Amino acid sequence: MATVVLRENGKMREKSLTMDTLNPQVKAVEYAVRGPIVTKAGDIERGLQQGQKHPFTEVIKANIGDSHAMGQKPITFLRQVVALCSFPELLDSSIFPDDAKQRARRILQGCGGQSLGSYSASQGVDCIRQDIAVYIEQRDKGVPADWDNIYLTTGASDGIVSILKMLVSGQGRSRSGVMIPIPQYPLYSAAISEMEAVQINYYLDEDNCWALDINELHRAYQAAKEHCHPRVICIINPGNPTGQVQSKKCIEEVLHFAYEENLFVMSDEVYQDNVYSPDCQFHSFKKVLYEMGPEYFNTVELASFHSTSKGYSGECGFRGGYMEVLNLDLEVKAQLVKLLSVRLCPPVSGQAAMDVIVNPPLPHEPSYLQFHKEKSAVLGALAEKAQMTEQILNTVPGIKCNPVQGAMYAFPRIFIPPRAVEEAMSLGISPDMMYCLRLLEETGICLVPGSGFGQREGTYHFRMTILPTTEKLKVLLEKLRDFHIKFLKEYASLEEPKR
Amino acid sequence: MATVVLRENGKMREKSLTMDTLNPQVKAVEYAVRGPIVTKAGDIERGLQQGQKHPFTEVIKANIGDSHAMGQKPITFLRQVVALCSFPELLDSSIFPDDAKQRARRILQGCGGQSLGSYSASQGVDCIRQDIAVYIEQRDKGVPADWDNIYLTTGASDGIVSILKMLVSGQGRSRSGVMIPIPQYPLYSAAISEMEAVQINYYLDEDNCWALDINELHRAYQAAKEHCHPRVICIINPGNPTGQVQSKKCIEEVLHFAYEENLFVMSDEVYQDNVYSPDCQFHSFKKVLYEMGPEYFNTVELASFHSTSKGYSGECGFRGGYMEVLNLDLEVKAQLVKLLSVRLCPPVSGQAAMDVIVNPPLPHEPSYLQFHKEKSAVLGALAEKAQMTEQILNTVPGIKCNPVQGAMYAFPRIFIPPRAVEEAMSLGISPDMMYCLRLLEETGICLVPGSGFGQREGTYHFRMTILPTTEKLKVLLEKLRDFHIKFLKEYASLEEPKR
Repeated sequence: MATVVLRENGKMREKSLTMDTLNPQVKAVEYAVRGPIVTKAGDIERGLQQGQKHPFTEVIKANIGDSHAMGQKPITFLRQVVALCSFPELLDSSIFPDDAKQRARRILQGCGGQSLGSYSASQGVDCIRQDIAVYIEQRDKGVPADWDNIYLTTGASDGIVSILKMLVSGQGRSRSGVMIPIPQYPLYSAAISEMEAVQINYYLDEDNCWALDINELHRAYQAAKEHCHPRVICIINPGNPTGQVQSKKCIEEVLHFAYEENLFVMSDEVYQDNVYSPDCQFHSFKKVLYEMGPEYFNTVELASFHSTSKGYSGECGFRGGYMEVLNLDLEVKAQLVKLLSVRLCPPVSGQAAMDVIVNPPLPHEPSYLQFHKEKSAVLGALAEKAQMTEQILNTVPGIKCNPVQGAMYAFPRIFIPPRAVEEAMSLGISPDMMYCLRLLEETGICLVPGSGFGQREGTYHFRMTILPTTEKLKVLLEKLRDFHIKFLKEYASLEEPKR
Repeated sequence: MATVVLRENGKMREKSLTMDTLNPQVKAVEYAVRGPIVTKAGDIERGLQQGQKHPFTEVIKANIGDSHAMGQKPITFLRQVVALCSFPELLDSSIFPDDAKQRARRILQGCGGQSLGSYSASQGVDCIRQDIAVYIEQRDKGVPADWDNIYLTTGASDGIVSILKMLVSGQGRSRSGVMIPIPQYPLYSAAISEMEAVQINYYLDEDNCWALDINELHRAYQAAKEHCHPRVICIINPGNPTGQVQSKKCIEEVLHFAYEENLFVMSDEVYQDNVYSPDCQFHSFKKVLYEMGPEYFNTVELASFHSTSKGYSGECGFRGGYMEVLNLDLEVKAQLVKLLSVRLCPPVSGQAAMDVIVNPPLPHEPSYLQFHKEKSAVLGALAEKAQMTEQILNTVPGIKCNPVQGAMYAFPRIFIPPRAVEEAMSLGISPDMMYCLRLLEETGICLVPGSGFGQREGTYHFRMTILPTTEKLKVLLEKLRDFHIKFLKEYASLEEPKR
């Protein structure tokens, strides 16, 4: 359709919204997890359904942490509670266990008109916020949690964007700077672009299992101070896309640094239940802050994010999540509530799902055994797949993969021969994008290029989830190995001309 | 908690986030529907529960279009489908009708891994988008609808904010201007503040049942052109907070105006099923555009918004909604999808709820009769309450209420005596805010002052919903009448000194 049409009166009618008049901040946003590779994968999938021929029979999507789409079964208890809340007539039915009914009744009591169809308060349903506070206290071995600091959100993304939005201000050299890890989850860079904040990269240490290096934090901070006002540090622990689990010592260092430099701390802890390596343990930023003493615990502004989408439940579609925000200035808190109230409330069924995750069946309750079995099965399989992924990838020449200590991803480094790099450059795409496109076209495997997450210049990676079933993941890794070897061979020597 | 603390080393630690460093655009946001009156109502409600004495025994909330919270029952069929989708084991149960099961199976087929827990595509589940397109074609008597133009959203608000975000650009005199009705639903002004766009007010004609006057549009546009670049016109039809239903002629005039001035049209049609006055009919902007001929239909950029929250279902908590966007530039469309992909997807249970609304039981299906009965009962009661509200309010001296032709609100004009106006000014609050606060304290009735929506200077209003049950609404209106008469008397004459 043409952008300009001729009116009857002979005058031009232009489109109101064109690439020239589009909000430049929207244009600047990049989001690789659903970028061109994924669009292409969708096209190929539809082609396969319509009988098109490809060198494979199915597309294996390992591009996004979408557990159920990869075959993971929902946790029965969670779905029972949500179904009971959705259709309370079922509360009279004998097919549901009493503990699920008790949870559903309690949630409905907290809803206006006892209906999931009412708006909740902007911060979420009171009793769910209370359950979350109790859960956090238990998780953190008694560190106090006040439900007044808990805000339900639409997935974790919504909370992260809301807090960032509060923190962005100033112009020029006093513009807010946001420190983010590289590699990062691209929600951060997308939100920073959209808000025209300044992105401050601190690089994770690939040679040291993607650990956060405090000296690198200092370097990034000092360099950024020259051109912006660093105000917030974001940490993703366990790491996305890098799969590392942060040590307690490292968290202490980050918190001390934030304390010294008056930084707001945003800790993205959505993978807190996804720790596989026996040597690693999840430490919440809040608990570590508490243990550093009241001087820290009563002052450092900390927002921590959690979600229904990850962990063992993998309930992405419900868009459930919460954030706990510590030490927020009281007037600012009122401003946060106001900001959240404009979007009215997070989806109430997502809030109900969140409640089940923080308030699961107890040992004496009828659903305990099944719940426990399902949860262990999911986490056990993930641990197994995390190990298998690292092992198989490290057998491939030209691929080097750090241990997948936690989260749901491997982020291996791939060697791309100089001739392939040159070819990609001449096509105007990044070398790992070319690699992933070729991989998709030749094998049906859908990964995300490392360039979508950020990486040190001259290094190349991809992110893959460990979510396919064990069998399918094995097939994926073997196909990937064969592809990589073939790719290396193809671009290896100048004598073999490329077709 | 102090904003500044002393570190051990004697240096000050300031808070990172204070009112001084808060994003000024966030500070500028106002959102009356959940403002101070509602906070106070909540406090009073908690007080009542704890045995505090008030001149009333319950708070009646008529501040927000939250049907279920006011006692409206969910539509059984909708909840059956959502429960079946949430817990598919129920598909084997005989307690659910076949048509509900068929809907649930179809939705689940469209979900990754056949689970409501998977992310959907950013635009929403394909088959739901297809159902929406079919629904729109039927509603608009055959005007073609392409499901590629349909985007599921998190309530209508999310869609409105996303489209506005695309349209905001430029600086100074070329900054984007957004034309909105006054009175308006404060989501618009809040989003405009947050994005630092320019709000262009066009005033609805209170003396003419809140009709949109095309001359007023021209006036507002011409005046705004002096200091910004008007790019978009927003219309709310049926009106919120004003309850009018726009005539076809008026819609034609608006569309012709938008065509001539290259404006993007945003039509908020979330109350399309809420038309009560026998003289009124809902005309979609799209259908009217189509009937104006291809020169209009193929060029004017139009986004129309719908929601699960209103209509006869009143499912606010599910945060379901969709938008249809016509004539979007193809590259811009890709940008919109990218922007939406950052928030991953709208809640899938909300999408399922939306599907039921556009794909309800057909006459030959088992749930038809009950569905039809429930739908008619809700809409019939709303029509009755719309009429009753107008009638009773117009018996009160000093209150003048236009017919509630549609939507869920009355927005009567109230006479506030000059002495009351003076008193409010001396308290630094708007006179209608003082009025509503007094009303709340003395009667327990929670309304929103007109100043939260915008009104002509020197006029005062409040918005009240017609959602309480008929009996409760009658009590509300009678209490309101008594309060108003007493209020007038109290501030009437200078001879009668105020207590």
